[in-house]
Amino acid sequence: MNLPLNPKRTVAELKELRALTGDENGAQRVAFTPTWITARNWLKKKLSELPVEIHTDAAGNLWATLRGESSKELLIGGHMDSVPNGGWLDGCLNVLAGMEILRRINAQYGGKPPITIRLADWADEEGARFGKSLFGSSACSGRLDMNEARGLVDKQGITLPDALKNVGIDFERVKDSGKELKNAAAYLELHIEQGPVLLDLDLPLGAVLGTFGVERHAITFHGQAAHSGSTPMNRRKDAFLTAAKMSSEIYKIAERSGNGVCTIGSCTTKPGIVTSVVEECRITLDQRHLDGPALAKMFREAKAASEKFATEGNVQVSWERLWQIDPRPFNDELIALCDESIRETCGKSHRLPSGPLHDAAEVAVAGVPTVMMFVQSLHGISHNKIEDTKEDHLEMCVTAFDKLAERAIRWIQTRK
Amino acid sequence: MNLPLNPKRTVAELKELRALTGDENGAQRVAFTPTWITARNWLKKKLSELPVEIHTDAAGNLWATLRGESSKELLIGGHMDSVPNGGWLDGCLNVLAGMEILRRINAQYGGKPPITIRLADWADEEGARFGKSLFGSSACSGRLDMNEARGLVDKQGITLPDALKNVGIDFERVKDSGKELKNAAAYLELHIEQGPVLLDLDLPLGAVLGTFGVERHAITFHGQAAHSGSTPMNRRKDAFLTAAKMSSEIYKIAERSGNGVCTIGSCTTKPGIVTSVVEECRITLDQRHLDGPALAKMFREAKAASEKFATEGNVQVSWERLWQIDPRPFNDELIALCDESIRETCGKSHRLPSGPLHDAAEVAVAGVPTVMMFVQSLHGISHNKIEDTKEDHLEMCVTAFDKLAERAIRWIQTRK
Repeated sequence: MNLPLNPKRTVAELKELRALTGDENGAQRVAFTPTWITARNWLKKKLSELPVEIHTDAAGNLWATLRGESSKELLIGGHMDSVPNGGWLDGCLNVLAGMEILRRINAQYGGKPPITIRLADWADEEGARFGKSLFGSSACSGRLDMNEARGLVDKQGITLPDALKNVGIDFERVKDSGKELKNAAAYLELHIEQGPVLLDLDLPLGAVLGTFGVERHAITFHGQAAHSGSTPMNRRKDAFLTAAKMSSEIYKIAERSGNGVCTIGSCTTKPGIVTSVVEECRITLDQRHLDGPALAKMFREAKAASEKFATEGNVQVSWERLWQIDPRPFNDELIALCDESIRETCGKSHRLPSGPLHDAAEVAVAGVPTVMMFVQSLHGISHNKIEDTKEDHLEMCVTAFDKLAERAIRWIQTRK
Repeated sequence: MNLPLNPKRTVAELKELRALTGDENGAQRVAFTPTWITARNWLKKKLSELPVEIHTDAAGNLWATLRGESSKELLIGGHMDSVPNGGWLDGCLNVLAGMEILRRINAQYGGKPPITIRLADWADEEGARFGKSLFGSSACSGRLDMNEARGLVDKQGITLPDALKNVGIDFERVKDSGKELKNAAAYLELHIEQGPVLLDLDLPLGAVLGTFGVERHAITFHGQAAHSGSTPMNRRKDAFLTAAKMSSEIYKIAERSGNGVCTIGSCTTKPGIVTSVVEECRITLDQRHLDGPALAKMFREAKAASEKFATEGNVQVSWERLWQIDPRPFNDELIALCDESIRETCGKSHRLPSGPLHDAAEVAVAGVPTVMMFVQSLHGISHNKIEDTKEDHLEMCVTAFDKLAERAIRWIQTRK
C-alpha cells in the first residue's frame, strides 16, 4: 500500500505560510499579533479537513486531537509563532510536519488509530514580545512563574495579562492547560537545528539527547588602577590580565567535560582608559551541559580557575549567578527510536544535545517521555531571515519524523 | 660658611601654598583660573624679595632671572598649575625648591653668580582644562601644534585662544616665547615621582633618564557571533579568546624589552551579550620605552603576536594608531651629576625613566641639556589629593636638587 504521507505537500504548505505571514525581512508571526492569528486561522482551516477535534486550551495552545482506540496519547508539537524578522522554518516546520503525519495516520488507520494522536501548536514559544520564552508550554507543564509573568510588560507598556485578554485568554487560569497532558504517553518535536553541528557533519538529520542545563554567571576581577607609564609591570594588579586567562581556560574546561560548551560573551573594563591598568574587569560566563553533574563540575572548575588566576595576579574575584536551569534529558528509548527512523530514512544518524531550549524541554520536565529530531540548518543560524534548509532535507525530515511517530505509537502500545 | 639653603622653609611654603590654593579635595590651581593667578601672585611676591627680574613670556610662562657674570643660563623649572583636586606637590615642589635655590645662590654669590640663573613657572603643564598638556613649554620649544591648539575647547565651550586672551596672552604669538631658551645651557627639574619605583626600592631620590616614548594603538579583532548554546567550541571564531591572548603576551614583550612597559587599558566586546560568542573585541595598547628602537621593537612584536593569535583563532585583526611620541632621553653628563648629588645627600641613588611626560621633555627636545630628579611618592600616586611625600624626603630633595644646581653651574662654566 502506498501510504499517503506527502512530504512535498509540507514544503509547499511552508511556502504558502511564508507568503501569507512573512515579508522581505522574514517571518512576522509574533505571538498574539494579528499576523500570528492569521497563521493560526490558516492552520485551523487546514486541520479542519481532518476528522480532528480542535480547541484552544487555557494558555492559548492550540490542540488538534485525532481520537484512537486507546485514550493513551501521542503528542506532536511545534509553534506557529516566530521572532520578528524570523526564519521561515523555526517552529512551524514542526507543526506542518505534524499535520502531514496526522493525515497519514488518519488515512492509514481509517480515522481510528490504535492510540489517540494530538498535534499541539504552543503559544508564544519565542517570548519575542515579553522577553519570556516557552510561555504556553511552561503554563502547561506548571512551571510558569505566575508572579514573574504577571509583571511582564512589552515595549508599548502593555502587560502580558492584558495582551492575553485581547486574544481571549485569562492569565490567572493559564495553568488549567496542564490537564492537556493527563493522558500523554509520549511527546515528539521536530525542529530546525539552531546551530551548525549537522551542517559540519554533512548530515541531514539528528536525534536530540535533551536540552542543555545552563549556569550563567558574571565574574568580576578587582585589581588596582595605576598609571600606564609609571607603574612597573611587576607592580601591577591587572584585572584584565587575570580575566583574560579565563578565556583559554574555559575551552579546556569544555573539552574535559565531553560535550559541554562555555562562552565568555562580554567583557567590560574600568576605568577603561588607555593610560591606566585595568582596576575592574567583568566578564560573563555561560556554561551548558546535558549532564547535571558534568555541568556542576564545569562550574566548579571555572570558579577554581578564577580563584587560582586571581591569586596569581594579586587581584580579588567575585561571582554573581545570573541564571541557572537544569538539563532536560530526553527519553532514552525514544532517542533510540528517533535514531532508527533517521537511519532508515537517510542512512546515518547523529546524536546531539540542544543548546537552545524548546517546548519539548517543558513537556519533558512535566514527566512525559520526550524526544526531538533536528534537521540541518544551511547556515547554522536561526532567528534570522537567512535561516534555511535544503528542500530534500525538509522532505527527509518529514519522512523520518513520520517513521518516528509510527514507532512511538507501537512503543506506547507495548508499554505497561 | 653655613650656606643659607633652608629646605624647611620650602616645606613651610608648600604648606602655605596649599592653604591658599587647595581645599579638602586637593589642589585647585587649574591653569588660567583665578586660583592659579592667586598662586602666581603669591609666588611673584616671594620672588620679589630677591634681586631678580620677573616677567611673563608670550606663552604665559613666568620667568625670574638672576643675572650672573656670564649670559649663559642655568634654567630651573616647574609649574604652579595643577589638575582639579590635584596633589599638593605635583609641579609646585619644583618651583618652590627652585626659588629656595635662587635664594641660596643669591646669598652665596652676593647677588652675582658666575652664570645667569633663571626660574621658570611653565603655563598649563597639566592641560586639565583643554586636554592638552605641556602648553607653555611646548610653545617655548616650538613644538606646539598651532592648528590643533587653536581648536581646543573647554567644557564650557570656551576656546583656548579666548581663555588665553582673558589672562592677557595673544594665542597667535605664543611661540615668541621660544627666545627665552636662547642662552639656555642646562635645564633642571625636580618632581614628585608619579609612580611607585622609589617607594618600592625604599629610596628617597632618583635620577631620571628621560621620558618614555609612547606607541598607543587600538587593536580590533573581528570574529563571528554565534549562539552560546548551539555552537561547538571547535567551530567558534571567538574574538575575545584571541584578544585575551594579548594580555599575557604584552607582559612578555615588556620583559624582553628591558625597561619598557605595556598596558591594555580597555576592552570592549560586541555584541557583548551573555548568549553569544564575541564577534568583535577592541582593546587599547599603550607601549612605552626610553629607547626608540626598543619601543619600535615592542610595537612590532605586539603586532606580530596579534597576527599570529588571529590566525590561530581564525579571526581578523586590525590596528589603529591613537598616538605616538618619541622618547626624550636626558643628558648623560647631567644624569651623572644628578646621581652624585643624590648620593651625597642620602647615600644611594637610582636611575629610572619617567613614564609621564614633563615640561623637561619639551626643553630637552629644544636642544637644551636636561635632567630631572624624582622624589619618592608615598602612595606611588599622583593627580590625587592623597599624593604625598615624607617631610624628611622633601627636605632631602631640596638639598640634593641644590647640589645638582651648583654642579650644573660648574658644568656649564667648563663647557666649550
